[in-house]
Amino acid sequence: MAIIECIPNLSEGRRQDVIDACAQAIRGAGVHLLDVKSDASHNRTVYTFAGDAPAVRAAVLALFAAAVPAIDLRSHSGEHPRLGAVDVTPFVPIEGVTMAECVALAKSVGEEIGRQFGVPVFLYEEAASTPARRNLEDIRRGEFEGLAAKMQQPDWKPDFGPSAPHASAGAAVVGARMPLIAYNINLATNRLDVAKKIASAVRQSSGGLRFVKAMGVELSDKGVVQVSMNLTNFEKTPMFRVFELVKREAARYGVNVLESEIVGLVPAAALTATAAWFLQMEDGFSAEQILENRLRGKA
Amino acid sequence: MAIIECIPNLSEGRRQDVIDACAQAIRGAGVHLLDVKSDASHNRTVYTFAGDAPAVRAAVLALFAAAVPAIDLRSHSGEHPRLGAVDVTPFVPIEGVTMAECVALAKSVGEEIGRQFGVPVFLYEEAASTPARRNLEDIRRGEFEGLAAKMQQPDWKPDFGPSAPHASAGAAVVGARMPLIAYNINLATNRLDVAKKIASAVRQSSGGLRFVKAMGVELSDKGVVQVSMNLTNFEKTPMFRVFELVKREAARYGVNVLESEIVGLVPAAALTATAAWFLQMEDGFSAEQILENRLRGKA
Repeated sequence: MAIIECIPNLSEGRRQDVIDACAQAIRGAGVHLLDVKSDASHNRTVYTFAGDAPAVRAAVLALFAAAVPAIDLRSHSGEHPRLGAVDVTPFVPIEGVTMAECVALAKSVGEEIGRQFGVPVFLYEEAASTPARRNLEDIRRGEFEGLAAKMQQPDWKPDFGPSAPHASAGAAVVGARMPLIAYNINLATNRLDVAKKIASAVRQSSGGLRFVKAMGVELSDKGVVQVSMNLTNFEKTPMFRVFELVKREAARYGVNVLESEIVGLVPAAALTATAAWFLQMEDGFSAEQILENRLRGKA
Repeated sequence: MAIIECIPNLSEGRRQDVIDACAQAIRGAGVHLLDVKSDASHNRTVYTFAGDAPAVRAAVLALFAAAVPAIDLRSHSGEHPRLGAVDVTPFVPIEGVTMAECVALAKSVGEEIGRQFGVPVFLYEEAASTPARRNLEDIRRGEFEGLAAKMQQPDWKPDFGPSAPHASAGAAVVGARMPLIAYNINLATNRLDVAKKIASAVRQSSGGLRFVKAMGVELSDKGVVQVSMNLTNFEKTPMFRVFELVKREAARYGVNVLESEIVGLVPAAALTATAAWFLQMEDGFSAEQILENRLRGKA
C-alpha cells in the first residue's frame, strides 16, 4: 500500500475545542492520526497523519472544513509566523509512492481548497510553480497582515483560488517535500564556539551540505554543546555523511563526538542506508533483502 | 501480528513431484512460502515460510503428512548429512514473538509429530532438553544409518515419539533459534592465507566471537579473497562488531576491506542496530522512532 505522511500546521494552539474538532475531522477521513502537538505561545498546532492518497486528500479537506469557519486571523496572535488558518500542508512520500505523486496530490488538493473554501493557495517546495516559491519563508514573509498588499504584486498571484486573501482564513501553503530528520550530534566539550563553527561548516546556508540546516547550541544540563540539525533530504544528503563530516570538523578542534540522537521519527531507509555505508556493502544490497520487507511484500 | 519464520529441510532434492507436493502442503496451511531451494547433489530441499504460530504449526504438520509416506531413507543418498525425511525444522522469532514462544511451539509441534506420525523427535538449539543436544551436528552424528544403534544408548532417547527410528522416515530434529545472517567480507587482496587467518581469529570455534562461524575462501572471478561467515545470533554478536574486528585483523596484514555483502535475508533490527552503533546514537534511540514501525503499530 502507498503511504503518504501529511503534517498540516493549524493557526490555533489555545482553544482546545477547536484543536479537538480538527483532530476529529482528520480521524473521520480514515487516516491514522499519529501525533498532535499544540503550542500556546506559538498559538499553533501540528497534526501528523498518514494514509493512502485518497484518504489523505479527504483528511486535508475535512480539516479545512473544520478550521476555516473556526479561526479568524484578524484576531489571531502568536510567536510563530503564519499566513492562514490552515497555514502549511506538506505531503511526504513514505512507502510505495513517488515524490511526483505527492506533488500531483498537492496540486489536486490545492485546487480543491481554492474552489471549495475560497482560500488562495500557494504551492511550495517540490510542488512550487517557480523557484521563488520553493522556500516557505519567502512565501510567508509579511505574514497574514501583509498578505493583501503582497498579493497585489504580479509575482504573488496564487497558484489556485481567488487573487485576494480570504477575509478571516488568509491563504494556504500546500506542497510536497522529503521527510525531515531532526538529528543532533553532541560533542565532548563545553566550547559553544566549536559547535557554532561546525554548524556553520556543515550547513548549506554558509557553504556546507545541500540539505542540512544547523546551529550550535549549549546543553547546560549535560555540560556539553550540540550541533543541532534538520536534514531535509536524507537521500541526497545522508545521515552517515553528515555524521562523518561533523566528526572530522570536531577533530580539527581536538574534540570528540560524544553521541548523536534522532528527535522524533526517522524513515527506515535512512538507517538502512547508514548501515550499508558503514559496512561497505556492495551495490548488490537491496531493501528486498530485509526480511520484514519480503514478508510484507507477500502479505 | 506475531511473525515466526520456519525453515524445514526435506531429504529430497531430485523428485520434483515430491518437492512440489510438499510446497503445496505448506501453502495450503495459510502461511507465506517465501522460498524453495532444492539441491540435487545434496538430495535436499530447504523451504522458507512465515506466519503466526497456529499457521506455522499447521504447515509443519501438513509437510510431515506429505513427506513421511513419500520419502524412504533406506534408499536415500546425497552429500548432506541427514537423520530423517523432514530432517530439521527450526522456528525463528521475527516480530512480535519471543524466543520462549518459539521454544514452546517447537515442543508442541514435536510432541504432535511423535504422536501423529510415529517419528521420534529430538529438540535442538534453544529448545534442547540438555546442553548435549543444542548442536544439530551432535544429534545428527551417525546419520540415518547409525540411528537405531544410537537410540539404544540412554543418552539418546528422543524427546517425543517412539524410542526407535521410524522404519522409512528416520527421526526429526525440531527446535528454535535466532535468525541466521549469511555475511561475507571481501578483502582487497588475493592472499588466501590472510582470509583464513582472519576467519580463524573471529570465529567461535577457534577462540573468536561466540556467534560467528567463518571460513576463508577464494573468489577467483574477482581475484580477491573472502571471509565467509554465518552470524547465528545478531543480537549478541552484532554485525558491526564482526565487521570492525575483521577490518582490524586485516589491517594487521596491511590489507583493506573491499566490501561486504549479505547473502539472502537480514532482519531489519540487525541493520538498525548497526546504524545506531556507527552513529553513536545515545541509548534513547528506539525502534519506535522508525516511522514505518509507528505507522504499522497504528494500523
